[in-house]
Amino acid sequence: MKPLEVNSIIPLYHQLKERLQELVDNGHWAPGEKIFSENQLMDQFNVSRNTAKKAIEELVQEGTLYRTQGKGTFVAKPKMQQSLMGFYSFSKVLKEKGLNPKDIILKIEEVVPSHKVIEALQLKKSESVIEIQRLRCANEEPYILESSFLPKRVVTDIDELNKVGQVSLYDLLDQQFGVTVTRAKEAFEPVLIRPEESTYLETESGLPALLLERIAYDGKDNPVEFCKSIVRGDRCRFYTELT
Amino acid sequence: MKPLEVNSIIPLYHQLKERLQELVDNGHWAPGEKIFSENQLMDQFNVSRNTAKKAIEELVQEGTLYRTQGKGTFVAKPKMQQSLMGFYSFSKVLKEKGLNPKDIILKIEEVVPSHKVIEALQLKKSESVIEIQRLRCANEEPYILESSFLPKRVVTDIDELNKVGQVSLYDLLDQQFGVTVTRAKEAFEPVLIRPEESTYLETESGLPALLLERIAYDGKDNPVEFCKSIVRGDRCRFYTELT
Repeated sequence: MKPLEVNSIIPLYHQLKERLQELVDNGHWAPGEKIFSENQLMDQFNVSRNTAKKAIEELVQEGTLYRTQGKGTFVAKPKMQQSLMGFYSFSKVLKEKGLNPKDIILKIEEVVPSHKVIEALQLKKSESVIEIQRLRCANEEPYILESSFLPKRVVTDIDELNKVGQVSLYDLLDQQFGVTVTRAKEAFEPVLIRPEESTYLETESGLPALLLERIAYDGKDNPVEFCKSIVRGDRCRFYTELT
Repeated sequence: MKPLEVNSIIPLYHQLKERLQELVDNGHWAPGEKIFSENQLMDQFNVSRNTAKKAIEELVQEGTLYRTQGKGTFVAKPKMQQSLMGFYSFSKVLKEKGLNPKDIILKIEEVVPSHKVIEALQLKKSESVIEIQRLRCANEEPYILESSFLPKRVVTDIDELNKVGQVSLYDLLDQQFGVTVTRAKEAFEPVLIRPEESTYLETESGLPALLLERIAYDGKDNPVEFCKSIVRGDRCRFYTELT
Protein backbone atom coordinates (compact mmCIF):
# COMPACT_ATOMS: atom_id res chain seq x y z
CA MET A 1 0.00 0.00 0.00
CA LYS A 2 1.23 3.49 -0.83
CA PRO A 3 1.87 5.36 2.44
CA LEU A 4 -0.30 8.34 3.40
CA GLU A 5 1.15 11.82 2.91
CA VAL A 6 2.22 12.94 6.35
CA ASN A 7 2.96 16.51 5.27
CA SER A 8 -0.27 17.03 3.34
CA ILE A 9 -2.76 19.68 4.43
CA ILE A 10 -5.39 16.93 4.22
CA PRO A 11 -5.83 15.31 7.65
CA LEU A 12 -4.54 11.74 7.86
CA TYR A 13 -7.89 10.28 8.89
CA HIS A 14 -9.39 11.80 5.74
CA GLN A 15 -6.65 10.38 3.53
CA LEU A 16 -7.18 6.99 5.14
CA LYS A 17 -10.91 7.24 4.67
CA GLU A 18 -10.48 8.02 0.97
CA ARG A 19 -8.10 5.07 0.61
CA LEU A 20 -10.55 2.68 2.21
CA GLN A 21 -13.41 4.07 0.11
CA GLU A 22 -11.32 3.41 -3.01
CA LEU A 23 -10.59 -0.15 -1.93
CA VAL A 24 -14.32 -0.72 -1.53
CA ASP A 25 -15.20 1.02 -4.81
CA ASN A 26 -12.68 -0.90 -6.90
CA GLY A 27 -13.84 -4.20 -5.46
CA HIS A 28 -10.74 -5.04 -3.43
CA TRP A 29 -13.23 -6.00 -0.72
CA ALA A 30 -16.62 -7.38 -1.74
CA PRO A 31 -19.91 -6.48 0.00
CA GLY A 32 -20.12 -8.45 3.25
CA GLU A 33 -16.33 -8.95 3.37
CA LYS A 34 -14.35 -8.07 6.48
CA ILE A 35 -11.89 -5.19 6.13
CA PHE A 36 -8.65 -4.55 8.08
CA SER A 37 -8.94 -4.39 11.85
CA GLU A 38 -7.93 -1.19 13.65
CA ASN A 39 -4.56 -2.76 14.47
CA GLN A 40 -3.97 -3.76 10.86
CA LEU A 41 -4.87 -0.26 9.67
CA MET A 42 -2.42 1.23 12.19
CA ASP A 43 0.33 -1.09 10.88
CA GLN A 44 -0.42 -0.81 7.18
CA PHE A 45 -0.85 2.96 7.03
CA ASN A 46 1.31 3.92 10.00
CA VAL A 47 -1.43 5.86 11.76
CA SER A 48 -2.61 6.18 15.35
CA ARG A 49 -5.59 4.27 16.71
CA ASN A 50 -7.59 7.50 16.82
CA THR A 51 -6.95 8.14 13.13
CA ALA A 52 -8.00 4.60 12.22
CA LYS A 53 -11.09 4.87 14.43
CA LYS A 54 -12.17 8.20 12.93
CA ALA A 55 -11.79 7.00 9.32
CA ILE A 56 -13.87 3.90 10.02
CA GLU A 57 -16.41 5.87 12.04
CA GLU A 58 -17.14 8.20 9.12
CA LEU A 59 -17.39 5.36 6.60
CA VAL A 60 -19.83 3.58 8.90
CA GLN A 61 -21.90 6.77 9.23
CA GLU A 62 -21.93 7.18 5.46
CA GLY A 63 -23.10 3.61 4.99
CA THR A 64 -19.97 2.33 3.22
CA LEU A 65 -19.02 0.04 6.10
CA TYR A 66 -20.85 -1.56 9.01
CA ARG A 67 -19.66 -3.01 12.28
CA THR A 68 -20.74 -6.16 14.02
CA GLN A 69 -20.08 -6.24 17.75
CA GLY A 70 -17.06 -8.43 18.48
CA LYS A 71 -16.66 -9.54 14.86
CA GLY A 72 -15.16 -6.58 13.02
CA THR A 73 -15.90 -4.08 10.30
CA PHE A 74 -17.43 -5.18 7.00
CA VAL A 75 -18.25 -3.72 3.60
CA ALA A 76 -21.92 -2.74 3.41
CA LYS A 77 -24.15 -3.91 0.63
CA PRO A 78 -24.66 -1.31 -2.07
CA LYS A 79 -27.86 0.67 -1.64
CA MET A 80 -30.90 -0.02 -3.75
CA GLN A 81 -31.09 2.82 -6.29
CA GLN A 82 -34.62 3.96 -6.93
CA SER A 83 -35.50 6.39 -9.71
CA LEU A 84 -38.22 8.97 -9.13
CA MET A 85 -38.75 9.53 -12.83
CA GLY A 86 -42.04 7.65 -12.97
CA PHE A 87 -44.13 5.04 -11.18
CA TYR A 88 -41.91 2.40 -9.74
CA SER A 89 -42.34 -1.07 -8.39
CA PHE A 90 -40.18 -2.06 -5.46
CA SER A 91 -40.35 -5.72 -6.48
CA LYS A 92 -39.30 -4.97 -10.06
CA VAL A 93 -36.30 -2.85 -9.00
CA LEU A 94 -35.09 -5.61 -6.69
CA LYS A 95 -35.46 -8.28 -9.36
CA GLU A 96 -33.43 -6.15 -11.77
CA LYS A 97 -30.68 -6.06 -9.13
CA GLY A 98 -30.76 -9.83 -8.81
CA LEU A 99 -32.35 -9.59 -5.36
CA ASN A 100 -35.31 -11.65 -4.31
CA PRO A 101 -38.30 -9.47 -3.32
CA LYS A 102 -40.71 -10.66 -0.64
CA ASP A 103 -43.57 -8.94 1.15
CA ILE A 104 -44.57 -9.94 4.64
CA ILE A 105 -48.12 -8.86 5.40
CA LEU A 106 -48.26 -7.57 8.97
CA LYS A 107 -51.83 -6.35 9.05
CA ILE A 108 -54.93 -6.01 6.89
CA GLU A 109 -57.72 -4.45 8.89
CA GLU A 110 -60.30 -1.73 9.18
CA VAL A 111 -58.95 1.19 11.21
CA VAL A 112 -60.15 4.58 12.39
CA PRO A 113 -58.39 7.02 10.05
CA SER A 114 -56.04 9.58 11.52
CA HIS A 115 -56.40 13.26 10.81
CA LYS A 116 -53.68 12.99 8.15
CA VAL A 117 -55.35 10.04 6.39
CA ILE A 118 -58.73 11.81 6.41
CA GLU A 119 -57.18 14.84 4.77
CA ALA A 120 -55.12 12.90 2.23
CA LEU A 121 -58.04 10.72 1.12
CA GLN A 122 -60.60 13.54 1.45
CA LEU A 123 -62.75 11.23 3.56
CA LYS A 124 -66.27 12.12 4.61
CA LYS A 125 -67.11 12.05 8.30
CA SER A 126 -67.43 8.52 9.70
CA GLU A 127 -65.95 6.97 6.55
CA SER A 128 -63.54 4.25 7.54
CA VAL A 129 -60.41 2.91 5.90
CA ILE A 130 -58.57 -0.36 5.41
CA GLU A 131 -54.92 -0.42 6.43
CA ILE A 132 -52.51 -2.85 4.78
CA GLN A 133 -49.21 -2.92 6.61
CA ARG A 134 -46.37 -4.72 4.87
CA LEU A 135 -42.71 -5.35 5.44
CA ARG A 136 -40.97 -5.26 2.10
CA CYS A 137 -37.88 -7.41 2.01
CA ALA A 138 -34.98 -8.11 -0.33
CA ASN A 139 -33.29 -11.49 0.08
CA GLU A 140 -35.15 -11.96 3.39
CA GLU A 141 -33.83 -8.63 4.75
CA PRO A 142 -36.42 -5.93 5.58
CA TYR A 143 -35.89 -2.68 3.60
CA ILE A 144 -39.21 -0.83 3.92
CA LEU A 145 -42.06 -0.75 6.45
CA GLU A 146 -45.11 0.35 4.53
CA SER A 147 -48.72 1.17 5.42
CA SER A 148 -51.33 1.70 2.71
CA PHE A 149 -54.67 3.23 3.64
CA LEU A 150 -57.58 2.67 1.29
CA PRO A 151 -61.12 4.10 1.67
CA LYS A 152 -63.43 1.25 2.65
CA ARG A 153 -65.83 2.17 -0.16
CA VAL A 154 -63.07 1.25 -2.64
CA VAL A 155 -62.27 -2.11 -1.06
CA THR A 156 -65.50 -4.00 -1.57
CA ASP A 157 -64.02 -7.32 -0.41
CA ILE A 158 -61.28 -7.07 2.22
CA ASP A 159 -60.28 -10.74 1.78
CA GLU A 160 -59.13 -10.06 -1.76
CA LEU A 161 -56.37 -7.87 -0.31
CA ASN A 162 -54.54 -10.95 0.95
CA LYS A 163 -53.33 -11.38 -2.61
CA VAL A 164 -50.91 -8.42 -2.22
CA GLY A 165 -48.30 -11.03 -1.41
CA GLN A 166 -48.47 -12.23 -5.04
CA VAL A 167 -49.90 -9.32 -7.05
CA SER A 168 -48.91 -5.65 -6.77
CA LEU A 169 -51.43 -3.52 -4.87
CA TYR A 170 -52.16 -1.35 -7.90
CA ASP A 171 -52.75 -4.38 -10.13
CA LEU A 172 -55.07 -5.74 -7.45
CA LEU A 173 -56.97 -2.44 -7.22
CA ASP A 174 -57.34 -2.49 -10.99
CA GLN A 175 -58.32 -6.14 -11.43
CA GLN A 176 -60.43 -6.74 -8.32
CA PHE A 177 -61.94 -3.36 -7.56
CA GLY A 178 -61.98 -1.59 -10.92
CA VAL A 179 -59.86 1.29 -9.62
CA THR A 180 -56.99 2.38 -11.86
CA VAL A 181 -54.25 4.49 -10.31
CA THR A 182 -53.14 7.04 -12.88
CA ARG A 183 -50.97 9.46 -10.95
CA ALA A 184 -49.49 9.98 -7.49
CA LYS A 185 -47.89 12.70 -5.40
CA GLU A 186 -44.93 11.63 -3.32
CA ALA A 187 -43.18 13.55 -0.54
CA PHE A 188 -39.85 12.78 1.16
CA GLU A 189 -38.57 13.67 4.57
CA PRO A 190 -35.63 12.38 6.56
CA VAL A 191 -36.59 10.87 9.92
CA LEU A 192 -35.06 8.74 12.67
CA ILE A 193 -36.16 5.12 12.91
CA ARG A 194 -38.38 4.69 15.99
CA PRO A 195 -38.01 1.79 18.40
CA GLU A 196 -41.23 0.06 17.23
CA GLU A 197 -40.17 0.43 13.58
CA SER A 198 -36.64 -0.81 14.25
CA THR A 199 -38.01 -4.13 15.49
CA TYR A 200 -39.71 -4.77 12.15
CA LEU A 201 -36.83 -3.39 10.11
CA GLU A 202 -34.29 -5.44 12.10
CA THR A 203 -32.07 -2.41 12.58
CA GLU A 204 -31.23 0.04 15.35
CA SER A 205 -33.61 2.82 16.30
CA GLY A 206 -32.26 6.32 15.82
CA LEU A 207 -30.70 5.50 12.46
CA PRO A 208 -31.67 7.73 9.54
CA ALA A 209 -34.55 6.71 7.27
CA LEU A 210 -36.72 8.30 4.64
CA LEU A 211 -40.36 8.89 5.36
CA LEU A 212 -42.19 8.62 2.05
CA GLU A 213 -45.79 9.75 1.85
CA ARG A 214 -47.74 9.05 -1.30
CA ILE A 215 -51.25 9.94 -2.36
CA ALA A 216 -52.42 7.93 -5.39
CA TYR A 217 -55.31 9.12 -7.57
CA ASP A 218 -57.66 7.33 -9.95
CA GLY A 219 -58.55 8.50 -13.48
CA LYS A 220 -61.17 10.91 -12.09
CA ASP A 221 -58.55 12.45 -9.79
CA ASN A 222 -60.07 11.02 -6.64
CA PRO A 223 -57.53 9.98 -3.99
CA VAL A 224 -57.70 6.18 -3.59
CA GLU A 225 -54.62 5.42 -1.51
CA PHE A 226 -52.51 7.12 1.13
CA CYS A 227 -49.26 5.28 1.64
CA LYS A 228 -46.66 5.91 4.33
CA SER A 229 -43.31 4.15 4.09
CA ILE A 230 -40.29 4.08 6.37
CA VAL A 231 -37.35 3.33 4.08
CA ARG A 232 -34.02 2.21 5.57
CA GLY A 233 -31.40 4.84 4.75
CA ASP A 234 -28.60 2.29 4.81
CA ARG A 235 -30.30 0.21 2.12
CA CYS A 236 -32.02 2.61 -0.25
CA ARG A 237 -31.17 5.75 -2.17
CA PHE A 238 -33.44 7.77 -4.45
CA TYR A 239 -32.48 9.74 -7.51
CA THR A 240 -34.00 11.87 -10.19
CA GLU A 241 -32.97 13.72 -13.32
CA LEU A 242 -33.58 17.44 -13.66
CA THR A 243 -33.79 19.08 -17.08
CA MET B 1 -62.59 21.45 23.99
CA LYS B 2 -64.39 18.18 23.31
CA PRO B 3 -63.15 15.53 25.77
CA LEU B 4 -61.12 12.56 24.50
CA GLU B 5 -62.89 9.21 24.17
CA VAL B 6 -61.80 7.20 27.18
CA ASN B 7 -63.37 3.95 25.95
CA SER B 8 -61.99 4.14 22.42
CA ILE B 9 -59.59 1.48 21.14
CA ILE B 10 -57.35 4.39 20.06
CA PRO B 11 -54.81 5.16 22.78
CA LEU B 12 -55.38 8.46 24.58
CA TYR B 13 -51.95 9.85 23.68
CA HIS B 14 -52.78 9.25 20.03
CA GLN B 15 -56.15 10.98 20.30
CA LEU B 16 -54.45 13.90 22.03
CA LYS B 17 -51.76 14.04 19.37
CA GLU B 18 -54.39 14.16 16.63
CA ARG B 19 -56.24 16.93 18.44
CA LEU B 20 -53.10 19.02 18.77
CA GLN B 21 -52.20 18.38 15.13
CA GLU B 22 -55.66 19.62 14.16
CA LEU B 23 -55.29 22.77 16.25
CA VAL B 24 -52.03 23.49 14.44
CA ASP B 25 -53.43 22.66 11.00
CA ASN B 26 -56.52 24.83 11.36
CA GLY B 27 -54.42 27.77 12.54
CA HIS B 28 -55.64 27.87 16.16
CA TRP B 29 -51.94 28.31 16.97
CA ALA B 30 -49.72 30.14 14.50
CA PRO B 31 -46.14 29.08 13.66
CA GLY B 32 -43.84 30.19 16.48
CA GLU B 33 -46.74 30.39 18.94
CA LYS B 34 -46.54 28.66 22.31
CA ILE B 35 -48.97 25.79 22.82
CA PHE B 36 -50.44 24.46 26.09
CA SER B 37 -47.98 23.40 28.76
CA GLU B 38 -48.03 19.81 30.00
CA ASN B 39 -50.07 20.90 33.01
CA GLN B 40 -52.58 22.69 30.83
CA LEU B 41 -52.90 19.65 28.57
CA MET B 42 -53.52 17.45 31.62
CA ASP B 43 -56.26 19.83 32.80
CA GLN B 44 -57.90 20.51 29.45
CA PHE B 45 -57.98 16.92 28.21
CA ASN B 46 -58.07 15.11 31.55
CA VAL B 47 -54.99 13.00 30.79
CA SER B 48 -51.94 11.89 32.77
CA ARG B 49 -48.57 13.60 32.47
CA ASN B 50 -47.21 10.58 30.59
CA THR B 51 -49.98 10.83 28.00
CA ALA B 52 -49.36 14.55 27.52
CA LYS B 53 -45.60 13.95 27.28
CA LYS B 54 -45.95 11.19 24.72
CA ALA B 55 -48.29 13.19 22.47
CA ILE B 56 -45.93 16.17 22.49
CA GLU B 57 -42.87 13.96 22.03
CA GLU B 58 -44.25 12.48 18.82
CA LEU B 59 -45.29 15.84 17.42
CA VAL B 60 -41.80 17.17 18.13
CA GLN B 61 -40.26 14.16 16.38
CA GLU B 62 -42.51 14.68 13.39
CA GLY B 63 -41.54 18.34 13.19
CA THR B 64 -44.96 19.78 13.99
CA LEU B 65 -43.79 21.23 17.32
CA TYR B 66 -40.45 22.19 18.80
CA ARG B 67 -39.32 22.71 22.36
CA THR B 68 -37.13 25.43 23.79
CA GLN B 69 -35.44 24.56 27.08
CA GLY B 70 -37.19 26.30 29.96
CA LYS B 71 -39.56 28.22 27.68
CA GLY B 72 -42.12 25.70 26.48
CA THR B 73 -43.41 23.98 23.36
CA PHE B 74 -44.05 25.94 20.18
CA VAL B 75 -45.58 25.42 16.75
CA ALA B 76 -42.85 24.79 14.17
CA LYS B 77 -42.67 26.77 10.97
CA PRO B 78 -44.11 24.94 7.98
CA LYS B 79 -41.46 23.18 5.94
CA MET B 80 -40.24 24.57 2.66
CA GLN B 81 -41.83 22.43 -0.07
CA GLN B 82 -39.48 21.75 -2.94
CA SER B 83 -40.65 20.11 -6.16
CA LEU B 84 -38.33 17.71 -7.94
CA MET B 85 -40.19 18.07 -11.23
CA GLY B 86 -37.48 20.18 -12.86
CA PHE B 87 -34.56 22.46 -12.09
CA TYR B 88 -35.25 24.51 -9.04
CA SER B 89 -33.84 27.59 -7.45
CA PHE B 90 -33.73 27.67 -3.68
CA SER B 91 -33.93 31.47 -3.70
CA LYS B 92 -36.95 31.51 -5.98
CA VAL B 93 -38.87 28.96 -3.89
CA LEU B 94 -38.24 30.98 -0.75
CA LYS B 95 -39.34 34.23 -2.37
CA GLU B 96 -42.59 32.58 -3.51
CA LYS B 97 -43.20 31.64 0.14
CA GLY B 98 -42.64 35.22 1.23
CA LEU B 99 -39.33 34.31 2.86
CA ASN B 100 -36.17 36.29 2.37
CA PRO B 101 -33.37 34.18 0.82
CA LYS B 102 -29.76 34.92 1.73
CA ASP B 103 -26.54 33.05 0.98
CA ILE B 104 -23.58 33.27 3.30
CA ILE B 105 -20.37 32.34 1.49
CA LEU B 106 -18.22 30.28 3.84
CA LYS B 107 -15.42 29.35 1.50
CA ILE B 108 -14.29 29.80 -2.12
CA GLU B 109 -10.97 28.04 -2.61
CA GLU B 110 -8.93 25.56 -4.56
CA VAL B 111 -9.05 22.14 -2.89
CA VAL B 112 -7.64 18.69 -3.49
CA PRO B 113 -10.62 16.72 -4.82
CA SER B 114 -11.82 13.71 -2.87
CA HIS B 115 -12.26 10.34 -4.50
CA LYS B 116 -15.97 11.00 -4.85
CA VAL B 117 -15.49 14.41 -6.52
CA ILE B 118 -12.91 12.96 -8.94
CA GLU B 119 -15.37 10.29 -9.98
CA ALA B 120 -18.37 12.59 -10.25
CA LEU B 121 -16.53 15.20 -12.33
CA GLN B 122 -14.51 12.59 -14.27
CA LEU B 123 -11.33 14.52 -13.40
CA LYS B 124 -7.98 13.70 -14.91
CA LYS B 125 -5.08 12.97 -12.56
CA SER B 126 -3.72 16.10 -10.84
CA GLU B 127 -6.68 18.21 -11.99
CA SER B 128 -7.80 20.42 -9.16
CA VAL B 129 -11.18 21.85 -8.23
CA ILE B 130 -12.70 24.98 -6.74
CA GLU B 131 -14.99 24.50 -3.77
CA ILE B 132 -17.72 27.02 -3.01
CA GLN B 133 -19.25 26.40 0.37
CA ARG B 134 -22.42 28.30 1.16
CA LEU B 135 -24.93 28.48 3.94
CA ARG B 136 -28.33 29.04 2.40
CA CYS B 137 -30.68 30.90 4.70
CA ALA B 138 -34.34 31.89 4.79
CA ASN B 139 -35.17 34.93 6.90
CA GLU B 140 -31.67 34.75 8.42
CA GLU B 141 -32.16 31.10 9.47
CA PRO B 142 -29.81 28.50 7.93
CA TYR B 143 -31.68 25.80 5.95
CA ILE B 144 -28.98 24.19 3.78
CA LEU B 145 -25.21 23.74 4.01
CA GLU B 146 -24.00 23.38 0.45
CA SER B 147 -20.65 22.68 -1.21
CA SER B 148 -20.25 23.01 -4.97
CA PHE B 149 -17.14 21.58 -6.61
CA LEU B 150 -16.18 22.91 -10.04
CA PRO B 151 -13.24 21.73 -12.18
CA LYS B 152 -10.58 24.46 -12.14
CA ARG B 153 -10.43 24.43 -15.93
CA VAL B 154 -14.05 25.66 -15.99
CA VAL B 155 -13.50 28.49 -13.51
CA THR B 156 -11.08 30.73 -15.38
CA ASP B 157 -11.30 33.54 -12.82
CA ILE B 158 -11.93 32.46 -9.25
CA ASP B 159 -12.71 36.02 -8.09
CA GLU B 160 -15.80 36.11 -10.29
CA LEU B 161 -17.30 33.41 -8.05
CA ASN B 162 -17.76 35.94 -5.26
CA LYS B 163 -20.85 37.09 -7.15
CA VAL B 164 -22.75 33.93 -6.12
CA GLY B 165 -24.16 36.07 -3.32
CA GLN B 166 -26.10 38.10 -5.92
CA VAL B 167 -26.39 35.87 -9.00
CA SER B 168 -27.28 32.17 -9.07
CA LEU B 169 -24.29 29.87 -9.61
CA TYR B 170 -25.70 28.53 -12.88
CA ASP B 171 -26.32 32.05 -14.24
CA LEU B 172 -22.76 32.92 -13.25
CA LEU B 173 -21.35 29.83 -14.99
CA ASP B 174 -23.32 30.77 -18.07
CA GLN B 175 -22.53 34.50 -18.14
CA GLN B 176 -18.94 34.52 -16.89
CA PHE B 177 -17.52 31.20 -18.00
CA GLY B 178 -19.66 30.27 -21.01
CA VAL B 179 -20.79 27.01 -19.43
CA THR B 180 -24.50 26.24 -19.68
CA VAL B 181 -25.92 23.62 -17.35
CA THR B 182 -28.54 21.65 -19.28
CA ARG B 183 -29.30 18.68 -17.06
CA ALA B 184 -28.47 17.23 -13.65
CA LYS B 185 -28.71 13.98 -11.74
CA GLU B 186 -29.73 14.27 -8.12
CA ALA B 187 -29.60 11.61 -5.40
CA PHE B 188 -31.18 11.69 -1.93
CA GLU B 189 -30.24 9.92 1.24
CA PRO B 190 -31.29 10.47 4.83
CA VAL B 191 -28.39 11.22 7.20
CA LEU B 192 -27.82 12.52 10.72
CA ILE B 193 -26.49 16.05 11.11
CA ARG B 194 -22.85 15.93 12.25
CA PRO B 195 -21.47 18.15 15.01
CA GLU B 196 -19.48 20.36 12.57
CA GLU B 197 -22.53 20.76 10.33
CA SER B 198 -24.83 21.51 13.25
CA THR B 199 -22.76 24.57 14.17
CA TYR B 200 -23.36 26.10 10.74
CA LEU B 201 -26.98 25.00 10.56
CA GLU B 202 -27.66 26.31 14.09
CA THR B 203 -29.37 23.10 15.06
CA GLU B 204 -28.59 20.00 17.12
CA SER B 205 -26.32 17.29 15.78
CA GLY B 206 -27.97 13.89 15.38
CA LEU B 207 -31.14 15.36 13.93
CA PRO B 208 -32.30 13.96 10.57
CA ALA B 209 -31.28 15.71 7.36
CA LEU B 210 -31.26 14.97 3.66
CA LEU B 211 -27.96 14.52 1.91
CA LEU B 212 -28.46 15.72 -1.66
CA GLU B 213 -25.80 14.95 -4.23
CA ARG B 214 -26.09 16.52 -7.63
CA ILE B 215 -23.98 16.21 -10.75
CA ALA B 216 -24.71 18.96 -13.30
CA TYR B 217 -23.79 18.56 -16.97
CA ASP B 218 -23.22 21.04 -19.79
CA GLY B 219 -24.69 20.81 -23.30
CA LYS B 220 -21.98 18.37 -24.36
CA ASP B 221 -22.80 16.13 -21.41
CA ASN B 222 -19.58 16.91 -19.54
CA PRO B 223 -19.95 17.08 -15.77
CA VAL B 224 -19.30 20.66 -14.65
CA GLU B 225 -20.44 20.67 -11.04
CA PHE B 226 -20.68 18.23 -8.16
CA CYS B 227 -22.82 19.62 -5.39
CA LYS B 228 -23.33 18.17 -1.94
CA SER B 229 -26.01 19.64 0.31
CA ILE B 230 -27.04 18.93 3.86
CA VAL B 231 -30.69 19.95 4.05
CA ARG B 232 -32.36 20.43 7.43
CA GLY B 233 -35.14 17.86 7.74
CA ASP B 234 -37.14 20.09 10.06
CA ARG B 235 -37.24 22.89 7.49
CA CYS B 236 -37.48 21.26 4.06
CA ARG B 237 -39.55 18.62 2.36
CA PHE B 238 -39.26 17.38 -1.21
CA TYR B 239 -42.01 16.10 -3.43
CA THR B 240 -42.56 14.80 -6.89
CA GLU B 241 -45.41 13.65 -9.12
CA LEU B 242 -45.43 10.18 -10.62
CA THR B 243 -47.43 9.43 -13.74
